[in-house]
Amino acid sequence: MYSAGDVRVENVPDPKIVEPTDAVIRVSRACVCGSDLWPYQKMEHSDTGRVMGHEAIGVVEDVGADVRKIKRGDFVIMPFAFSDGTCAFCHDGLQTSCIHGGFFGTTEVAGAQAEAVRIPLADGTLFPVGAHADDALMASLLTLSDVMGTGHHAAIIARVTLGKSVAVVGDGAVGLCGVIAAKRLGAEQIIILGRHADRIALAKDFGATDVVSERGDAAVERVRELTGGFGVHSVLECVGLEQAMNTAISIARPGGAVGRVGVPQEQTIPGSEPAFYNNVTVGGGPAPVRAYIEDLLPDVLEGKIQPGRVFDRNVALDGVPDGYRAMNDREAIKVMVTP
Amino acid sequence: MYSAGDVRVENVPDPKIVEPTDAVIRVSRACVCGSDLWPYQKMEHSDTGRVMGHEAIGVVEDVGADVRKIKRGDFVIMPFAFSDGTCAFCHDGLQTSCIHGGFFGTTEVAGAQAEAVRIPLADGTLFPVGAHADDALMASLLTLSDVMGTGHHAAIIARVTLGKSVAVVGDGAVGLCGVIAAKRLGAEQIIILGRHADRIALAKDFGATDVVSERGDAAVERVRELTGGFGVHSVLECVGLEQAMNTAISIARPGGAVGRVGVPQEQTIPGSEPAFYNNVTVGGGPAPVRAYIEDLLPDVLEGKIQPGRVFDRNVALDGVPDGYRAMNDREAIKVMVTP
Repeated sequence: MYSAGDVRVENVPDPKIVEPTDAVIRVSRACVCGSDLWPYQKMEHSDTGRVMGHEAIGVVEDVGADVRKIKRGDFVIMPFAFSDGTCAFCHDGLQTSCIHGGFFGTTEVAGAQAEAVRIPLADGTLFPVGAHADDALMASLLTLSDVMGTGHHAAIIARVTLGKSVAVVGDGAVGLCGVIAAKRLGAEQIIILGRHADRIALAKDFGATDVVSERGDAAVERVRELTGGFGVHSVLECVGLEQAMNTAISIARPGGAVGRVGVPQEQTIPGSEPAFYNNVTVGGGPAPVRAYIEDLLPDVLEGKIQPGRVFDRNVALDGVPDGYRAMNDREAIKVMVTP
Repeated sequence: MYSAGDVRVENVPDPKIVEPTDAVIRVSRACVCGSDLWPYQKMEHSDTGRVMGHEAIGVVEDVGADVRKIKRGDFVIMPFAFSDGTCAFCHDGLQTSCIHGGFFGTTEVAGAQAEAVRIPLADGTLFPVGAHADDALMASLLTLSDVMGTGHHAAIIARVTLGKSVAVVGDGAVGLCGVIAAKRLGAEQIIILGRHADRIALAKDFGATDVVSERGDAAVERVRELTGGFGVHSVLECVGLEQAMNTAISIARPGGAVGRVGVPQEQTIPGSEPAFYNNVTVGGGPAPVRAYIEDLLPDVLEGKIQPGRVFDRNVALDGVPDGYRAMNDREAIKVMVTP
């Protein structure tokens, strides 16, 4: 990506081992993320461009001299953040704050919308799936590199547990995975706030019990009606815009919690007073998806959850620019890339 | 209080039972709260004025026909919010969101800087101490009606547990009680952010291990130095101003939590991006002190904690106006009222 709307497919030198802790993976599947749409809409021109993409599954092609756990030929999930796996934050399961870590698809570390990627700190970063998965599972495995783990993070931070009422703000891929996560954690009522027919249909398949297509005050009123007047225990904020956060705080029940995973587009969190007077907790951030794979992978392998259904388009590398456009125009929920 | 700075002592009709669930208590001790200073600084003129005060201990003088648990002669703690004790929120221990509840010292319900107070929903609201306490314990018992429970709430929301590092933003009575709460919950490091010598001395007595008297960026830098560069696990925000919240979020360690109990003076919470990228949780609000009395009272009765030491001035009713002035001028930490 060279600037907003300017996505190009180019031949670049193959990634190589730079540090002895690196690996290189050949990408089996990558994809375009909702968060990639922020630079797609806003990015300033860059002469060197940015190799985009932070979600991938693939096969290890090469490992550096100090890589111990990851082997050539391993089929792996690449979380969107790399991490050493040994620091205090990795130890606490917050790999997205790893002291030596960072993010793929930045100007520092090239991304995964490519044939191959260099993986820093391979032992801490990559999660070997064990066996080559069959094709039918590829899409769902790919979601463990970001959106499924991110939806799960929102649900964990929003304290979803058995029997709770949950609202999911945003019907993008993360919101839809949030529905899966809420259902999986035992939520009794799951309200999806969104207005795209295809996404809503999928949300219902995933376990949403109610749909609110209103926005702003009308949405708040509708959620209150659906919850005996009080709001929900848990809100998953999967957008990142001020209005979405305002809605999220307003529909939380007193003592409730908002888990926000939409990348925030403003400097402040709105709703300071209602959040305070209702003792509503606001948390969340970049999901430590690396920590969640262990928990979520068995359900994916057994087919208990099918987050891969959020992909409704599959393109080769040369289809990536149009994939961005399609997601940005809300023509596609999420675009998978098969290099 | 008739307007900012205009506090008068007046003869008013004695409070009486209005609803059959009411009680009337004779006030043994009341006090001026840091949160009373917001109207003291900002209140618009009111022709009828507002009977201030939401913290008291006292003796039950009269009870309505439907009051079952509370008896005439009981020595009781009056939490700053009244609550029915039976609704879903009371059941969850969030009495400050009671469906039928409300707050003392508002235009609807007269306050406790008075000889007597009408207590709505007496059975749900009042906590009988059991015996008439001796005079030495009165001050500490009084703090259970607000500041000690509020400091404890901040610590609970900030997830203070054994061995954690804690910062307390604000050295008012609530901040000082926050230090007691953090110590009591087993915090290993307790950093007080404040600059008043008398308050800091008390904070150290209460268990503060470090003092940061800088403000803004310098305070953030200093806390980082004291915590190996990462910040603290738990922040107790006991001020309510934007700069305090900014500092609170900036000194929280990745994955940490801010418990805010300072009444917010702005519409938004600053620091949306640092809170997000560090997965810092922000929660808190009016403390359900009614829920915490059971836990804190034994420690007060046994003298294990002495939150009453936050009172450094005691006045009769006619000294209340000057008590406001003294607290507002930071001459007194907290003013007790013996009617």
